[in-house]
Amino acid sequence: MKILHLEQIKELVSRLDLIPAIEAGFAAYSAGRAVVPPVGELLLERGDVHIKYGYLRSDDYYVIKVASGFYDNPKLGLPSSNGLMLLFCQKTGDLLCILLDQGHLTDTRTAVAGAIAAKYLAPKHVERIGIVGTGIQARLQLKYLDQIVPCHDVLVWGRGGPQLFRYQSEMEGHGYRIETTQETADILRTCNLVVTCTPSTKPLLALADLRSGTHITAVGSDTPHKQELDTAILGRADLVVADSISQCLERGEIYQAIRSGQIVERDLLELGQIIHGQAAGRTNEEQVSIADLTGVAVQDIAIATAVYKATIKLDIIL
Amino acid sequence: MKILHLEQIKELVSRLDLIPAIEAGFAAYSAGRAVVPPVGELLLERGDVHIKYGYLRSDDYYVIKVASGFYDNPKLGLPSSNGLMLLFCQKTGDLLCILLDQGHLTDTRTAVAGAIAAKYLAPKHVERIGIVGTGIQARLQLKYLDQIVPCHDVLVWGRGGPQLFRYQSEMEGHGYRIETTQETADILRTCNLVVTCTPSTKPLLALADLRSGTHITAVGSDTPHKQELDTAILGRADLVVADSISQCLERGEIYQAIRSGQIVERDLLELGQIIHGQAAGRTNEEQVSIADLTGVAVQDIAIATAVYKATIKLDIIL
Repeated sequence: MKILHLEQIKELVSRLDLIPAIEAGFAAYSAGRAVVPPVGELLLERGDVHIKYGYLRSDDYYVIKVASGFYDNPKLGLPSSNGLMLLFCQKTGDLLCILLDQGHLTDTRTAVAGAIAAKYLAPKHVERIGIVGTGIQARLQLKYLDQIVPCHDVLVWGRGGPQLFRYQSEMEGHGYRIETTQETADILRTCNLVVTCTPSTKPLLALADLRSGTHITAVGSDTPHKQELDTAILGRADLVVADSISQCLERGEIYQAIRSGQIVERDLLELGQIIHGQAAGRTNEEQVSIADLTGVAVQDIAIATAVYKATIKLDIIL
Repeated sequence: MKILHLEQIKELVSRLDLIPAIEAGFAAYSAGRAVVPPVGELLLERGDVHIKYGYLRSDDYYVIKVASGFYDNPKLGLPSSNGLMLLFCQKTGDLLCILLDQGHLTDTRTAVAGAIAAKYLAPKHVERIGIVGTGIQARLQLKYLDQIVPCHDVLVWGRGGPQLFRYQSEMEGHGYRIETTQETADILRTCNLVVTCTPSTKPLLALADLRSGTHITAVGSDTPHKQELDTAILGRADLVVADSISQCLERGEIYQAIRSGQIVERDLLELGQIIHGQAAGRTNEEQVSIADLTGVAVQDIAIATAVYKATIKLDIIL
């Protein structure tokens, strides 16, 4: 049994081509080849814990992920998010690997999903990438988009000057040209590939600013209460794509847009259907497309499996 | 963060007084001071996995247990049961301890619950202990009963001669006088404290053999399909005690007896109510009492917490 610590996991992740691994997970999920029971939830006074678990029928492993959010932690100098993954053998139940990733694999698989959405839905010519938010996802989304989209011109929106400045200086160090704004309207007015990654509970982006040909990946909302997009944007969109239709009926941007009557369930596509070729992604440069990513266990299964397989391949004895 | 391996856990468990720790867990559960969400379940081709989790409101920790049963494992030379527990800080979500107990803590907390049931329900004078089954629980139940009941005369029932012989020689090495039988009727005819610990799906003990004053702890059945006691025994009993009433309405001996009309829900007591003094246990030597133990997460929480606290107390740096 292997125990992988955060630094080892980061090292392994940096060597992996995660886009095909997680694409395969989404495709298996949409084809009904994944077993993903309902999420376990433990509510505590100062935080909440989610247990996501499941397996792909065609695979050798099953994965259990524990993820927590304790929102007073930053006052104690601790990160609010934490987590680990456990990977077991499907044949024997043997625990093969404990991945003490402290939430890093969740952050990474979320960012990789953003890149996958862009692969199938972004316009051919991306003029400028718009990033809404200045946190860890706002950084990782750009990092993984780099494998899909050659554009390095970025406009980032944030509420606070210091956070915007830190984001700008850090990401410019990675070779991006970063402009900043505190006006959300600037994002849709000047960017045609947008990623929203905030915990906002009120819409940040409005239909009035939307241009034809834009793709938006909404990453921030994973509950029934969070929302980053005006529901009218989904009503206007030519393509509305969910990571999991069943989950997006209960949370995220799609949930809000259905509730407000802007769209109906039959308007929805699932990302895995597009990856698998059962549904078309973007077919012309005028379409508006939205990907609503609420996070599904199949991404956790895919990334934990990819990291574990890498330890075998690299013959790492821990 | 500590990682405890099986041998370390066994060493710690041997030093602990687990009866009060698990009694406190049962009492908290029955008093509504435990948060125990529904059990997560993952069904695979060759086995099944259960995730039990929760916390006591008054405590500092929460616990997640993963337990698996892969029934072809013995053919591969592997144990069919396996498991681990994770212990976290309630204030911050920090992972404090990984207990790689391979199911030993589950076996132990089950045996301790048997001793607790005997403490409140066994007759004052135990003539002979009857054990139904020859597996690990059949061994551990005797071990923990030793803290409650001075009797060392034991009759053990099993299907196979070799298993009975191994049980006899092993337990005689621990100071017991062991007789064996392959007739289940002998158990209730000659023993007044009985523990059943088999995976039987058909009743092994019959009402016709039951004598007044007997206590039976039924440990084996933890599903809607397993059954060790004729339901008429529960119908005859003066006291029918569940570890969790809500759980026993859906599985175990009580589920069978209610389904067959032998008892009704209002006949039931909960072990934690008796421990806490809200309900009486045995009040005279003529009563027949039954404890149906299906296993509740609060036992896992209690034992994992006790082991973790012992590592702190013993100043074990791992």
